[in-house]
Amino acid sequence: MLHKNLSVNDNGHLAIAGFDTVELAKKYKTPLYVLDTDSVYESCVKYKTLISKYFAEGSKPLFASKALSCTEIYRIAEKAGIGIDVVSGGEIYTAKKAGFPLKNAYFHGNNKTDADIAFALDCGVGCFVVDNTEEINALQAEAERRGISVRVMLRVSPGIDPHTHKAVVTGSVDSKFGIAIETGQALEAIKLISGCKNLLLEGLHCHIGSQIFEYDPFAEAAAVLIRFVSEVKAKLRISVNALNLGGGFGVRYTDEDPEFDYEAVLSKISASIKKSCAECGVEEPKIYFEPGRSIVAAAGLTLYTVGSFKTIKGYKSYVSIDGGMPDNPRYALYQSKYTCLIANKAGEEKSVCATVAGRCCESGDLIQEDVKLQHCERGDILAVLVTGAYNYSMASNYNRLPRPAMVAVGREGDRVIIKRESYEDLVRNDI
Amino acid sequence: MLHKNLSVNDNGHLAIAGFDTVELAKKYKTPLYVLDTDSVYESCVKYKTLISKYFAEGSKPLFASKALSCTEIYRIAEKAGIGIDVVSGGEIYTAKKAGFPLKNAYFHGNNKTDADIAFALDCGVGCFVVDNTEEINALQAEAERRGISVRVMLRVSPGIDPHTHKAVVTGSVDSKFGIAIETGQALEAIKLISGCKNLLLEGLHCHIGSQIFEYDPFAEAAAVLIRFVSEVKAKLRISVNALNLGGGFGVRYTDEDPEFDYEAVLSKISASIKKSCAECGVEEPKIYFEPGRSIVAAAGLTLYTVGSFKTIKGYKSYVSIDGGMPDNPRYALYQSKYTCLIANKAGEEKSVCATVAGRCCESGDLIQEDVKLQHCERGDILAVLVTGAYNYSMASNYNRLPRPAMVAVGREGDRVIIKRESYEDLVRNDI
Repeated sequence: MLHKNLSVNDNGHLAIAGFDTVELAKKYKTPLYVLDTDSVYESCVKYKTLISKYFAEGSKPLFASKALSCTEIYRIAEKAGIGIDVVSGGEIYTAKKAGFPLKNAYFHGNNKTDADIAFALDCGVGCFVVDNTEEINALQAEAERRGISVRVMLRVSPGIDPHTHKAVVTGSVDSKFGIAIETGQALEAIKLISGCKNLLLEGLHCHIGSQIFEYDPFAEAAAVLIRFVSEVKAKLRISVNALNLGGGFGVRYTDEDPEFDYEAVLSKISASIKKSCAECGVEEPKIYFEPGRSIVAAAGLTLYTVGSFKTIKGYKSYVSIDGGMPDNPRYALYQSKYTCLIANKAGEEKSVCATVAGRCCESGDLIQEDVKLQHCERGDILAVLVTGAYNYSMASNYNRLPRPAMVAVGREGDRVIIKRESYEDLVRNDI
Repeated sequence: MLHKNLSVNDNGHLAIAGFDTVELAKKYKTPLYVLDTDSVYESCVKYKTLISKYFAEGSKPLFASKALSCTEIYRIAEKAGIGIDVVSGGEIYTAKKAGFPLKNAYFHGNNKTDADIAFALDCGVGCFVVDNTEEINALQAEAERRGISVRVMLRVSPGIDPHTHKAVVTGSVDSKFGIAIETGQALEAIKLISGCKNLLLEGLHCHIGSQIFEYDPFAEAAAVLIRFVSEVKAKLRISVNALNLGGGFGVRYTDEDPEFDYEAVLSKISASIKKSCAECGVEEPKIYFEPGRSIVAAAGLTLYTVGSFKTIKGYKSYVSIDGGMPDNPRYALYQSKYTCLIANKAGEEKSVCATVAGRCCESGDLIQEDVKLQHCERGDILAVLVTGAYNYSMASNYNRLPRPAMVAVGREGDRVIIKRESYEDLVRNDI
């Protein structure tokens, strides 16, 4: 199968981490998110181990909350001993609720409000990844008012194009994020920070994009940052000791995506960084990465019940399921590829070609177009694989559909980690 | 201004229905949805009056819930004396909670689960717009089990292309919705329904798309349906007395969109229907319409606080706001056009060109690219106009951002109709 936690069991059913998905659908109803939490934990540990092995002391992974934020995920991150990145008060609140030590959190975002800054400081968030001059000034003012020092990293745009989907390319100079090195504005911002007596510059941050399968965009970004570190040292006599290279490691959504050898890629990035440092006469900095998708995506899948199989004579076929863009908006947003199959017929041949349509009153509510599937009918269970990232976290109540439950499977058995929304949940805030 | 409920007041601030938006932002915080509920009510009444005037007795508008579903909207629909369409148990539950008489509700959707069917019947939903044969069979079985008769309309695809955005074109033969007339499958479905002794065929339904500014796509769709009514009568000796032409009337989002004269368009559709009926020897059917966007869109706007104004030298400028694709995903999904302005400087000239960026950690999180705006800085209030439809209803908690409150303004003053989500709301279902 696509990933090693997936299999077809003796009943011919799809299994994840050994759990029969048809049984899970029966027990917990559909639509249902399933998350293999052991696999999430193992990915966190793998990153931690590899980053310790290949990069300078103090280097570390930070789980990118935006991929999947819920209390359970922060408990796993803490257990694995890795840090997190957060992008909002809501993510900070969730991590806090889970008991995650927020000193190990890095606070991102291109617009932190005054309320966000105050809340993050109240919660003891460890470091702010500052994005713009307004934020630098607002953070300095609040830190001064509180009489505290705050660690910051400056988000810069290195001008790297990692050749992925436009919406997920964030490292180019023309970006809503960060401050451009090329224009000289990043150097100005470093000067501004160095003049803020309550801010301590921990390092630089960049994020070049998503679904990157090669090592060289990361190596190029690191090279740009290391040259900039050298320039900062020369011009401002400021040492920068940490580089956060963001996330973006590719995930295998379909058979067409390559397998990704994290150790090979990280070791190549490491070698490239050592070379760049030597060339620039810069001491090897601590390196942080922010994996999100590559930790949770393949650990998850979504189960739906088929409502109809419709063949329009001379045109094509549609399978309607009991979820759709509200629980997985990625096809509607990015035409993202997914692997679909009929979970209760996983052992059978894929004999039909159909478009998997959500249940919303919207033509764009599709999960995948023209994919191979086992023959199916009302009542069958359709699985969409590799939905652990950017599904629950992006879910809406469009068409007033309650968000699915999420069930964890693993060595501790199967258990609900996010309850299914009720109809009453939907009207809770209506007056 | 773009719509007659908008103005610039003596303070140079943007006002909606006479309410100062800067004061609203101060009182209720941002991001904030504002809804002019008098305008919503007046649009409902206008549709009711015009449809009574131009179409056969029993013709009526049904508010399309998917545009905006909350208890207040159903109270307005009831007060205006119009029906509704619903697409899920959640919308039915919300309407019921508001005390809306569900006998005036039409239940849509390409995948109604057995649980949905049972819930809708429990709630006394008036009519099912059946989409496929599986649903017809499931509904018949449940109605028989209960010993009741259920009214149904059959959703058909007429094969009309109204020349709008692909994702909102739903009338073509190749569609996840309904059953095609062209292929002969719709006639088969009518035969199936006529053999279901607990189902009563009220009529036919089609929906050709969204943001349609001309009358002729509606007239063409009606002509196709009337020819089919004639065929059904000739071949099956079944009379079809009602046609639901769906929604799709265009809304003016920017100055580039035309003004839309509803009376002119409805009267032309009426004339065309009379002509088609005469040609086919068919008695003039009742006509239903399902306006959603055209009732609520222009009644709403969204207020944000500016966090930063960033100019990338030699490239372009970005304004970051304290909301984004979680509260308005329409630019990310469809590159929808919107009119933006600085509410506290509404009287000033638009002197800058900038991209309005949301606060999410995602490059695609933009509200609008390269629009003219008044010069702005951190703390200013940015208004996005015409957001009453498909904003709150499509909102997510992406990046764990709480959904904004919605405030009603009108003759009854200003009041919260949907409470702002709290951080605690976000983790309520986490275990």
